[in-house]
Amino acid sequence: MTLPKIGITIGDPGGIGPEIVLKAFSGNFVLPSADYILFGSSRVLQEEEKTVGLCLPLGSLKAKKISKTGTLAFREVDIALRKIRKGVPSPENGLASFRFFEAAIAEARQEVLQGVVTAPVSKQSWALAGVNWRGHTDFLGQFYPEIIMAFWSDKIKVALFSHHVSLREALRKVTRENLRSFFLRLSQSLARMRPGGFAFLVSGLNPHAGEGGLLGGEEIEEIIPAIEEARKSGLRISGPYPPDVVFRKALGQEDKIVIALYHDQGLIAFKLETFDKGVNLSVGLPFVRTSPDHGTAFDIAGKNAASPLSLIEAIKLAVELTPAPL
Amino acid sequence: MTLPKIGITIGDPGGIGPEIVLKAFSGNFVLPSADYILFGSSRVLQEEEKTVGLCLPLGSLKAKKISKTGTLAFREVDIALRKIRKGVPSPENGLASFRFFEAAIAEARQEVLQGVVTAPVSKQSWALAGVNWRGHTDFLGQFYPEIIMAFWSDKIKVALFSHHVSLREALRKVTRENLRSFFLRLSQSLARMRPGGFAFLVSGLNPHAGEGGLLGGEEIEEIIPAIEEARKSGLRISGPYPPDVVFRKALGQEDKIVIALYHDQGLIAFKLETFDKGVNLSVGLPFVRTSPDHGTAFDIAGKNAASPLSLIEAIKLAVELTPAPL
Repeated sequence: MTLPKIGITIGDPGGIGPEIVLKAFSGNFVLPSADYILFGSSRVLQEEEKTVGLCLPLGSLKAKKISKTGTLAFREVDIALRKIRKGVPSPENGLASFRFFEAAIAEARQEVLQGVVTAPVSKQSWALAGVNWRGHTDFLGQFYPEIIMAFWSDKIKVALFSHHVSLREALRKVTRENLRSFFLRLSQSLARMRPGGFAFLVSGLNPHAGEGGLLGGEEIEEIIPAIEEARKSGLRISGPYPPDVVFRKALGQEDKIVIALYHDQGLIAFKLETFDKGVNLSVGLPFVRTSPDHGTAFDIAGKNAASPLSLIEAIKLAVELTPAPL
Repeated sequence: MTLPKIGITIGDPGGIGPEIVLKAFSGNFVLPSADYILFGSSRVLQEEEKTVGLCLPLGSLKAKKISKTGTLAFREVDIALRKIRKGVPSPENGLASFRFFEAAIAEARQEVLQGVVTAPVSKQSWALAGVNWRGHTDFLGQFYPEIIMAFWSDKIKVALFSHHVSLREALRKVTRENLRSFFLRLSQSLARMRPGGFAFLVSGLNPHAGEGGLLGGEEIEEIIPAIEEARKSGLRISGPYPPDVVFRKALGQEDKIVIALYHDQGLIAFKLETFDKGVNLSVGLPFVRTSPDHGTAFDIAGKNAASPLSLIEAIKLAVELTPAPL
């Protein structure tokens, strides 16, 4: 039986990434069967092992058995780290975490990996290092401009129609044509993921979803026509629902995805419901990419205080969504 | 000892209002000590009594003792209801619920009542009846233009900087001067409510609160200066926090109020956290006004299926916030 190959990047050396990766693979948690490959720096991991008191069975390039059905290997990514500064953004850490990620994505694009799970990086560290991309999703957007940011948990699933733009700009994007094409793209990208597919609940933009045009015209002029067109194309899609109602409506229903029309509409709800156990999922790539729903947490980095649970959820989801090898 | 006088309006006769009022005063729940006065129609309540199987000890105008320390009276509000239609918006029900509310507010404005708790009305029924106001808050706005809509629970408290306007219009309102004056007004109105007052957490407008201007300029240009000015005026106020973080930050802390910059920013969070046990509170009136955080629920009206818990929370909060009589 061929297991899926999943790359794991260890994230910013100054953040909690290396620590949660060590903890996730320490043997205290049951991970799904897969061949895992860590992308990082042995120096970073060795320093972290001292802090955490854990030691991984890592042989560079050669995979070690970690369970009945899985293995763990290590890719040393060449970086020139003089000193590892914990708990602050730094150009050296920024460049290192960018290189780890870049190396893993290169192997995913070559179909060596079927999935990539990314520990958190610091956008500020990347900027200090002169990295031109604003984060993981931004970097992936150069190869896959139709990438969609989604958030996944057992309780609630959310896809973001727009994400890292100002609210003013997000409003401008709400047009019939943009929405229609987004609905179709999302549905196509997710088609393989679940037998029977998903039902989409579209949030309105305005209070009470516009209340018949009294509180804003976008629902009538743009959103409803786009939903109707998508429905005619065969999607299970409904709405627009009042934004303060739609998330409750979808709660606990695993075949439902809420389409949020802007970043905070989706993330206020998602973060309240999942309490940092949610997973960020990139939709629309030829491989699976997930990450924990938290950042580098510089304030607790290097203190052996970070929880690997969200990373473990991200790993489980990545393996679950990887199509079985032919 | 003088007890506070609290008016209770029974709401739209076609909705769940009369039912939850009957249930709240049925003796199965412990209500705080007060002299309660129901504003409604005895015909509506008598029909509802048959459905619910409960009978209130109501003597028109003459208060009956309902507990060791409280009384219940009834104000018959003259309305010409031919037939009570349940479960749909109707002009007759709209006019009736408007009259109940109008009568209670008149007594509150004359300082006969110290508080008013309003069961839900239907904005559609009001419109069908030719009532010019869009709801309770809109009606109160004619007397108290500085009224602020707030949402209250043990878990989280939210004040809305803007409410029933389109998102586009809500964005236009976000100016330094509007914000500063709102912060001061809110703080002054709440000053009597809690010894030591409240600390205000201001949400940002844009994703990540603008991320230093990268994702929108309002935080730097309008919101931060307004917060700084309010702080100089002596307010305990901080922010802007990322909108998907600020609610978690305030959760469970009873002296914290989140200031949401638009309707759904506040209500997505509030409704997810309080599960219809929250209370809508009008801030900035010379009397207390609360209401349950749900609507007429036409779909379950007349079926003895409605829960009075949110109304009971609204009654408790109204009594709690009523200043002790001199």
